[in-house]
Amino acid sequence: MQRRYSGCPINLTLEAFGDRWSLIVLRDIMFGRHRTFRALLGGSMEGIASNILADRLKRLTANGLLSRAADPQHNQKSIYRLTDKAIELVPMMAILGSWGLRHTPASRELSVRAEILERGGPALWSDFMDELRYLHLGGPRPERSALAMMQSAYEAALASR
Amino acid sequence: MQRRYSGCPINLTLEAFGDRWSLIVLRDIMFGRHRTFRALLGGSMEGIASNILADRLKRLTANGLLSRAADPQHNQKSIYRLTDKAIELVPMMAILGSWGLRHTPASRELSVRAEILERGGPALWSDFMDELRYLHLGGPRPERSALAMMQSAYEAALASR
Repeated sequence: MQRRYSGCPINLTLEAFGDRWSLIVLRDIMFGRHRTFRALLGGSMEGIASNILADRLKRLTANGLLSRAADPQHNQKSIYRLTDKAIELVPMMAILGSWGLRHTPASRELSVRAEILERGGPALWSDFMDELRYLHLGGPRPERSALAMMQSAYEAALASR
Repeated sequence: MQRRYSGCPINLTLEAFGDRWSLIVLRDIMFGRHRTFRALLGGSMEGIASNILADRLKRLTANGLLSRAADPQHNQKSIYRLTDKAIELVPMMAILGSWGLRHTPASRELSVRAEILERGGPALWSDFMDELRYLHLGGPRPERSALAMMQSAYEAALASR
């Protein structure tokens, strides 16, 4: 059977990402503050291969989920930033995390961020999106930092191991 | 770099699905009422290939997202049902659809279901999950049918084309 075009918004959303590695890269930029190829490669919890990382950064940029700019401090390096389209995936990341908390053997330390996003609900997701707009797009700085809340919970979980 | 195990709930959730085709198959079983290999193949808007469909049904069953039983009316056929773990992906489908409404060229007719799920919010997602538990797991029948609401909106959109 020949593959056909479908205008279904769920299908088109899945096509926009590409695959699991694309979402992992977006997750690392959202939650991990990594913005360069080298930082993303070195910081990858899942040990992404360098050719896969290079390909996904290219695809995400082509699909308008990342923007790419020269690093003013190292002119051979690029800095990747989330676009607003990517920032609007925060609710999906939160929902993926909530499902994972219930149905996968997620580790304690790596579950605390998902728990905070779940407890905070749409109000916290919205603040987190504003924070990412501040960090990646130069928007105004929001009053509360979702990243700081997640980071301190993560550190507390690590300390109590 | 070697791929490593990561206990991140987002990563584990993405690993549980496999890939985009797995989610497309789950979407078709959730929204389309198809339950057999033949019905899923024939009803596929995206023209899924038969080998891919067979592989994804096998993987989704192995990962506990579908259960498989012999069709009492045709003993060579199998009927696939959603498990509770898969039914709990309804919020994610709703969120994927909402994002697609804003950021992809989704068609009018195929957008109405996503719009209804977005407008209905978590209360409607919960009713839809109860309806899927009724249809797939023999749970009690909920008072309102999210599927009927989506179907009539879809037909109205088709008629006004």
